[in-house]
Amino acid sequence: MEAKEPGTFSRRDLGRIGAFTDGVMAVAITLLVLNLEVPTLASGESLADALFDLLPSLGAYLLAFALVGRFWVLHHNLFERLHGFDPPLMTLNLAFLALIALLPFSTDLYDVYTDEGLAAAVLGGTLGLAALAHWEMNQYALRHGFVRAEHRAETESGRPIGLGLAAVFLLSVPAAFLTVHLAEAMWISTVLLRYPLRRLGRRTSSA
Amino acid sequence: MEAKEPGTFSRRDLGRIGAFTDGVMAVAITLLVLNLEVPTLASGESLADALFDLLPSLGAYLLAFALVGRFWVLHHNLFERLHGFDPPLMTLNLAFLALIALLPFSTDLYDVYTDEGLAAAVLGGTLGLAALAHWEMNQYALRHGFVRAEHRAETESGRPIGLGLAAVFLLSVPAAFLTVHLAEAMWISTVLLRYPLRRLGRRTSSA
Amino acid sequence: MEAKEPGTFSRRDLGRIGAFTDGVMAVAITLLVLNLEVPTLASGESLADALFDLLPSLGAYLLAFALVGRFWVLHHNLFERLHGFDPPLMTLNLAFLALIALLPFSTDLYDVYTDEGLAAAVLGGTLGLAALAHWEMNQYALRHGFVRAEHRAETESGRPIGLGLAAVFLLSVPAAFLTVHLAEAMWISTVLLRYPLRRLGRRTSSA
Amino acid sequence: MEAKEPGTFSRRDLGRIGAFTDGVMAVAITLLVLNLEVPTLASGESLADALFDLLPSLGAYLLAFALVGRFWVLHHNLFERLHGFDPPLMTLNLAFLALIALLPFSTDLYDVYTDEGLAAAVLGGTLGLAALAHWEMNQYALRHGFVRAEHRAETESGRPIGLGLAAVFLLSVPAAFLTVHLAEAMWISTVLLRYPLRRLGRRTSSA
Repeated sequence: MEAKEPGTFSRRDLGRIGAFTDGVMAVAITLLVLNLEVPTLASGESLADALFDLLPSLGAYLLAFALVGRFWVLHHNLFERLHGFDPPLMTLNLAFLALIALLPFSTDLYDVYTDEGLAAAVLGGTLGLAALAHWEMNQYALRHGFVRAEHRAETESGRPIGLGLAAVFLLSVPAAFLTVHLAEAMWISTVLLRYPLRRLGRRTSSA
Repeated sequence: MEAKEPGTFSRRDLGRIGAFTDGVMAVAITLLVLNLEVPTLASGESLADALFDLLPSLGAYLLAFALVGRFWVLHHNLFERLHGFDPPLMTLNLAFLALIALLPFSTDLYDVYTDEGLAAAVLGGTLGLAALAHWEMNQYALRHGFVRAEHRAETESGRPIGLGLAAVFLLSVPAAFLTVHLAEAMWISTVLLRYPLRRLGRRTSSA
Repeated sequence: MEAKEPGTFSRRDLGRIGAFTDGVMAVAITLLVLNLEVPTLASGESLADALFDLLPSLGAYLLAFALVGRFWVLHHNLFERLHGFDPPLMTLNLAFLALIALLPFSTDLYDVYTDEGLAAAVLGGTLGLAALAHWEMNQYALRHGFVRAEHRAETESGRPIGLGLAAVFLLSVPAAFLTVHLAEAMWISTVLLRYPLRRLGRRTSSA
Repeated sequence: MEAKEPGTFSRRDLGRIGAFTDGVMAVAITLLVLNLEVPTLASGESLADALFDLLPSLGAYLLAFALVGRFWVLHHNLFERLHGFDPPLMTLNLAFLALIALLPFSTDLYDVYTDEGLAAAVLGGTLGLAALAHWEMNQYALRHGFVRAEHRAETESGRPIGLGLAAVFLLSVPAAFLTVHLAEAMWISTVLLRYPLRRLGRRTSSA
C-alpha cells in the first residue's frame, strides 16, 4: 500500500476519474444529436426542401462533434501523463466537464439563432472557458508535480498550443459580433490547423 | 480463486459496480443540461433579454453540477476504501443512484418554480436523502468489515462530515419554506465549505 | 497468446462486453427520470396538488429503477462466472439489452395509461422477455461450457430463480387484464422476495 | 516506460479510447428508444389501436438496435487486434462515432416518413458512411502496422466482409428511391446474413 497524503488521489484513482470524465464527454457528444429534429413539413413543402434546410444544423452538429472530440483527445493526452491528482485538480476537472456538458445547449442556441452574433458569442465563450479550464489543469499539474518526470518536457512544450486554443476561442467572442462567419472560421481552424499548430508549438518550445 | 461466501461480491466485482455507478452519475450530471432550453423569443423581445432571463437557470445548472460532482467524489472516496461488497450494500448503492438520477427532475422543478418553497424543498429533500443513503453505505461498510484495515481510521473520521452534509440538506427542507434563498445558501455552503468542514471533521475525530 | 477459435471471444473481451452492457443499462436506468415531467399548473391549481398527482409517476420511476437494478445484478452475477463468450451469446446479450433499453418507454406507457390493462401488459411483457433472454443466456453458457468450472454448481442452482423471475413477469401479462394492481404486486414481489426466492432456489437444487 | 513516438497512442491508451467509443455507442443505442413516443389517443381511438400503429416504430427501433449492435461487434473485433493507435486513426474513429451518433436521428426520420424514399436513403447513407469509415480504419491500421502480427491474416481476410457491408448499405440509397422495402430488406440482410457472409469472406481470402 503506497503512502498517500490525506486528500490526494493516487494513480489507481486516475482510472476512475478518467472513466467518469469519459462518461460525461461520451454523453455530451451524443446528446448533440438531439439538436437535429425530424422536420414537420409545412403544407406544400417537400421532405427534400425540409432536409435541405436542415443542412446548417447538420454542419453545426459535425463541427460541435469535432470540437468535443478535440477536447477529449486533449484531456486524454494530459491524463496519460499524470501520476496523481488532488482535490483542486478534481475541481478544475469538474469545471471543465460542466462547460463541455453545456455544449449541446450552446450549439443548439447557435444553430437556432445563426444570424445573431450573441448566440455565436455564447458558443465561442463556452469553448473558450473550457479551453481555459483545460489549460489551467495543465498548468496546475505542472506546478504541483503531478506530471510524470518523463513527460514534463512534452507537457511544457504543449502549453503554447493549449493557450493558443483558448485564445482563438475567446477571440471568437468579439469576432462573432463583427460577423458570425469569422467566428465560425476560427472554430473550424482549431480543428483543421491541429497539425500545423502542433509543429509551431514544438518549434516555439525548442527555441 | 479466493473463497467467497454466497451472495458476497469480491474485490474484482467492485470495479464493475464502480463502473456502473460512474455511468449512472455521468448520465445524470450531463442530463442536467436538458433543463436549459433554447429560448423562443416573444415578439419584440431581444435574444439578449431572453438569455439574461436564462441566467438563473444557468446558475441552477452549475449548482446542481457541482453538487452531483461533490457526491461523485464522496462515492469514489468510499469505494476506494472497500475490499468487498454484499447485496444489502448493493441495494443501498441503487437507492443512492435512484436519488442522484432524480436530480435532473428536482433541479428542473426548482428552476421552473423558483419562488415556491415547496419546489426548493423537493430539491433539498432529494439531496438530503441521497446524502443519507451515502452515509448509511459508509456506516454499513464499517459495521460489516468491508472497509480495508488501513482505511478504517480515515473512514471513521469522515463520518461527521457525511452526517453533517445530510443534516444541512435535510434542514434546507424546512428552511425552504421560510425563504428559498436560505435553502440555496445552505446548498452552496456544502460546495464552498468543503475544506473547512473536512478540517473540522478531522479535529472532531482526533479529540 | 492463448489459442482462440475463430469467432470466439476471450476472457479479455468479456471486460469490454461488460463495459458496453453497463453503459447501456446505466443510460437506460437514468433515462427513466425523463418520464417525470415538471408539471404545468392549470389555473387555480397549486404546486402541492400537482406534485401530489405526480406521486404515482414517482412510484413507477422507483419501481422501474429497482427492476433495472435487479437485472443489472443478475447480469453482473452471470458475467462474473463466465470465462468466454461467442457470437450467439453476444446476440442474446444484445436482445437482452434491446429489451432493457425499451423499459423507459414501457414504464412511461404504463404510467400514462395506469388504468389500462394493456399498458401494464406491455410493461410486464417487456420485463418477461428480458428475463427470458437472460435465462436463455444462462442456459446457453452452461450448455456450451462458458461457465468456469468452480461456478457451474452455483449457476445450475440459480436456474429455477431465473426461470421463476421470467414466469412471474410473463404471468403478469394476463394478470394485468384482470386487474392492474395484481400485475403491480407481482412486479414488486420480484424485488422484495429476492432473498426468500434465493433460499428456495438453493433448497430445490440440493433436493 | 516504453519508447513512444510523439503523437502516437500506446497499447494502454487503447483502453481509454475503447471506453470512450463504447460510451458513445451505448448512449446512441439507448437514445434510439426516444423515437418511440407514448401515444396520445385521438377521440374514440383505443390504446390497442394506437399501440398497433406503433408496431412499425418498434420494428425500426429493433432493426436500428441490431445494426448499432452489429457495428459495435465489428469495432470491438478490430480494436482487439490493434497494438497501437495514431492521430489519423483517432480522427477516423471520431468520424465513425459521429455517424453512429447520427443514427437515432436518421432512424427517427425514416420512421416518421416511412413512405418517402428520401428518408430511407438518408438512413441507408448514414449506415453506408459509417461502414465506410470503419472499413477505412481497418485499411489504415493494416497499412500502418497497427495490427498485431498474429491477427494480420484474420484482419486481411475480414476486408471483403467490411467492404461488402459498406456496399450493401450504400447500394440501399438508390434502392430506396425504387422502393423502400428493397432498402429495408438489404439492411435486414446485413444482420441475418452475418454467418453466411463470414464464411464467404473466409473462402474468398483462402482462394
